Amino acid sequence: MQAARFLPILSWARSYGRGELSSDLMAAVIVTIMLIPQSLAYALLAGLPPEAGLYASIAPILLYAILGTSRALAVGPVAVVSLLTASAVGQVAEQGTAGYAVAALTLAFISGGFLLLLGVLRLGFLANFLSHPVIAGFITASGILIAASQLKHVLGISAHGHTLLEILGSLASHLNAVNWITVIIGGSAAAFLFWVRRGLKPALLRLGASEGVADVLTKAGPIAVVTASTAAVWAMDLADRGVKIVGEVPQSLPPLTMPGLAPELLEALLVPAILISVIGFVESVSVAQTLAAKKRQRIDPDQELIGLGAANIGAAFTGGYPVTGGFARSVVNFDAGAETPAAGAFTAIGLAIAALALTPLVYFLPNATLAATIIVAVMSLVDFSILRKTWAYSRADFIAVAATILLTLGLGVEIGVASGVAISVLLHLYKTSSPHVAEVGRVPGTEHFRNTLRHKVETDPSVLTLRVDESLYFVNARVLEELIYNRIANGSKLKHIVLMFSAVNEVDYSALECLEAINHRLKALGIGLHLSEVKGPVMDRLKRSHFIENLNGQVFLSQQNAWVTLSTQSVVSDANRDHAGEDGVESATSGNTAVAVAHHR
Amino acid sequence: MQAARFLPILSWARSYGRGELSSDLMAAVIVTIMLIPQSLAYALLAGLPPEAGLYASIAPILLYAILGTSRALAVGPVAVVSLLTASAVGQVAEQGTAGYAVAALTLAFISGGFLLLLGVLRLGFLANFLSHPVIAGFITASGILIAASQLKHVLGISAHGHTLLEILGSLASHLNAVNWITVIIGGSAAAFLFWVRRGLKPALLRLGASEGVADVLTKAGPIAVVTASTAAVWAMDLADRGVKIVGEVPQSLPPLTMPGLAPELLEALLVPAILISVIGFVESVSVAQTLAAKKRQRIDPDQELIGLGAANIGAAFTGGYPVTGGFARSVVNFDAGAETPAAGAFTAIGLAIAALALTPLVYFLPNATLAATIIVAVMSLVDFSILRKTWAYSRADFIAVAATILLTLGLGVEIGVASGVAISVLLHLYKTSSPHVAEVGRVPGTEHFRNTLRHKVETDPSVLTLRVDESLYFVNARVLEELIYNRIANGSKLKHIVLMFSAVNEVDYSALECLEAINHRLKALGIGLHLSEVKGPVMDRLKRSHFIENLNGQVFLSQQNAWVTLSTQSVVSDANRDHAGEDGVESATSGNTAVAVAHHR
Repeated sequence: MQAARFLPILSWARSYGRGELSSDLMAAVIVTIMLIPQSLAYALLAGLPPEAGLYASIAPILLYAILGTSRALAVGPVAVVSLLTASAVGQVAEQGTAGYAVAALTLAFISGGFLLLLGVLRLGFLANFLSHPVIAGFITASGILIAASQLKHVLGISAHGHTLLEILGSLASHLNAVNWITVIIGGSAAAFLFWVRRGLKPALLRLGASEGVADVLTKAGPIAVVTASTAAVWAMDLADRGVKIVGEVPQSLPPLTMPGLAPELLEALLVPAILISVIGFVESVSVAQTLAAKKRQRIDPDQELIGLGAANIGAAFTGGYPVTGGFARSVVNFDAGAETPAAGAFTAIGLAIAALALTPLVYFLPNATLAATIIVAVMSLVDFSILRKTWAYSRADFIAVAATILLTLGLGVEIGVASGVAISVLLHLYKTSSPHVAEVGRVPGTEHFRNTLRHKVETDPSVLTLRVDESLYFVNARVLEELIYNRIANGSKLKHIVLMFSAVNEVDYSALECLEAINHRLKALGIGLHLSEVKGPVMDRLKRSHFIENLNGQVFLSQQNAWVTLSTQSVVSDANRDHAGEDGVESATSGNTAVAVAHHR
Repeated sequence: MQAARFLPILSWARSYGRGELSSDLMAAVIVTIMLIPQSLAYALLAGLPPEAGLYASIAPILLYAILGTSRALAVGPVAVVSLLTASAVGQVAEQGTAGYAVAALTLAFISGGFLLLLGVLRLGFLANFLSHPVIAGFITASGILIAASQLKHVLGISAHGHTLLEILGSLASHLNAVNWITVIIGGSAAAFLFWVRRGLKPALLRLGASEGVADVLTKAGPIAVVTASTAAVWAMDLADRGVKIVGEVPQSLPPLTMPGLAPELLEALLVPAILISVIGFVESVSVAQTLAAKKRQRIDPDQELIGLGAANIGAAFTGGYPVTGGFARSVVNFDAGAETPAAGAFTAIGLAIAALALTPLVYFLPNATLAATIIVAVMSLVDFSILRKTWAYSRADFIAVAATILLTLGLGVEIGVASGVAISVLLHLYKTSSPHVAEVGRVPGTEHFRNTLRHKVETDPSVLTLRVDESLYFVNARVLEELIYNRIANGSKLKHIVLMFSAVNEVDYSALECLEAINHRLKALGIGLHLSEVKGPVMDRLKRSHFIENLNGQVFLSQQNAWVTLSTQSVVSDANRDHAGEDGVESATSGNTAVAVAHHR
């Protein structure tokens, strides 16, 4: 178990059987076919020679298969990271020079080192800062962006852009150049794949096929489309009629390379590398968590940091550039039935073979078919129902998801995700900044105390019991002070204030200072300040200060104790005061406590 | 009351009497004398002609006196903002050109507009993100930085730098140029002022002076020093012997100016202006809050935004540059006895008169005396006891304060404060990311339920009651899921899990999804999931989802209800099961509940 924690491969490799093997092999074939042209395209996007994309998919994917915890994550070059690489490396070297390629290796090296560092420090919990709604919004918006970016291949035109408006604007301005044969290939491929996904399996089952056969045939859809369209292009010489094809790919295994380690290069690339690491990790973990959740599996974010860090270090030494768990490729991998990271290893082997020998086979594969595969895969993740669900449940969650979707579509994935996280955190802090404080009374006949506004409860005009419904810390510490001072101004008969701490999980130093100020002021006014139901950890901490010993009152184990003690005292002492009985009209003595029934507002 | 909220001047101007007038006038005289050379120095620091510093102190201080809520805050050019101005404006215009001065006006204009916007939107609560320890650390570190930066005037040498190391290094490298006459003036001024602050009042009281006389004489200390040292320099021709003096100041009232409003200028200065606004607001509010707390007064952060915004707009139209509530000048103002913002208005009048006519009087004032005044004033705020207090109470608060002090000294005030806030927020989130979950049982003879590890309580092996000591939200949602799954694996006799929600103040959408997942899994295992003591606001929200209707169990008003209901059921149903009584050894039937006394570990 302990070894499997550090080498996740051990958790699945021992029980690896024929079922997994066939699933993984099929997924690897599909992903390999998809990755060859995609890797080339991403490398060009990063400003690197095409083969760098292939190399970046081989060693990293193998290292991740050994060290990563996601069963379906496909590691390699991805669009966002490729773009970030181009912009970072472009600032230190001229595109096309040897220095440029070395800087890309260095970027992968620093990025990998940073991820490993976070992993060793076990800072993977940082991924929890991505709330479910933010992840759902991000995935939906990214799916739309990826699909939109692939439309150019289906239309046979060129287009650029990182935001939805940029992409659609660019597509619109090139619409006059649409290649209709490409549209037919891409359109029919997409239509066929959508049908395979939605209609084929039920149709096969109706025709009497067994569940297993229907499943395999359904998953073979992409292979059928790739084969058919490649054959069509080859047979009808469609490449000569403007249909873009994958074409010739250089043939070689990944070389052994060294990243540049000059201090000024490391310094110049440090910040971009950290940015790439964080965005890559966030993208990778959110994809991995989503895919794992679909199969009720789990991933370990700390170990993911190690896996992705090793993958990037691997890329740095084998002619690649920064990599991460890719969105589209992981979805295709998952969809094609990948069961274990072995699918990734097979993909790496497939890519190595392809890089060496098999590339001529995809020479006639039209880009439009690949684009169709990607579009169909990512569209299945576009799900706007999260907007409706969060709207119904919580406006704060709705704002977070809506902002994530809009900002991802409008300003790109990096800004979208970062804003989603920032907005979730700020909304949470905002919610805790004005704590709910309920005045409570005893539910008659019980030892249970509830909100006077929601329940019919017993109260006592000389004892004010406030249940503080939030941990007290710097953001809200002053609010309680204001609230109590306002209550004192109103209640002249008040002799005791009890703070019921059942919902206070923390009292930080700022809040301690506010409590001391409250105690000081109440003491001057002759009003007792008491605490009840203080939890162990909070009490342990309060005892480290002088607050408890200076407290102008008592700490009660339960609110019932506080009620019995203080309410009795108040009746006795009320009777000794000049205006005793002034409020006797509304209170009736029941046992040894003064009871006033608060009405349910 | 309502008018006073929007025009804070109304809250003090009506009851303004002779006592306030004399205090304010004396403070204004001291601050005016201090501000004339300081303003000139800050303007030079900002790369502007010297008179800009004077102009930036006149209209802004008047506007703040009308609209601001702090009694002692002195608004004007400050060191940090002057530095930020130089760096921002330097990127869009050449120093010494007319465009440079216009860009500085524009910077003040945008900054003022942004502060007004935040104020109108009532976003002043953002100042609460500055915890008490962070403010204390920031003030201590800034005091040290300011004192260190003034040492050069006392030594009669030149030095630069924004961090403690830079300043001390620069001082050390110029030590060979020390002017000993300056050291004698500055040193004796500082020694005298320290004695005035610590020893004069007790000495006067011992000599039979009344409290009031002692107070006035004590506060007149700085004036005495200024007068004596100016006279000494004049009489002994010390300026010819290398003692730096204030010298000649141009004579004119503030002119009417227009900020540049070209879109590209606004765009280029937007981000720096926002940065300056935020840092200025944070500095100003932390100074204002500290000074207000010393006199048990309060400030309104929303109204502070309005006051500071108006002050900056004022600076933009009267030949100034960005201003904020200054640290050193506010402390001097407070120390000199300022009672109301009228002190600021008098200071503005004093500066206007000085700018027009009186500047020759301070011609011979040595810079060393002014530096001594500032050093003595800020050293009184340096207080490291916050380190000891937070260390004893809470490591998280200690880390926040230590980081704020170290980063402010080591990297400058901007980074120091920003890091302090960021570290406090992250530590708070980190603390909530792994919630304390206590297994609870009933305190015998009561309806009160406490931690089984801390108290001697009744438990039932078939009912697991978990008190969740944290609001459930995205950062910690998964932790509860893990914890419950781990508990299921251990307890095979478990039939009911009760989540006691007395300390759960929020359940966000991410946590709702986790609760649904827990419910789904427990249902499959035949274990009931119940909630108890759910608060009104949390219950209201849960009812908006399908969670309650799908719940495989009940929601109990009180934990006592849950205990009585479920514990009875479990005894009855246990008796019908094959292995009934297996755990009967450790449980005894008491009334209608099975009781097992957990030992105090």
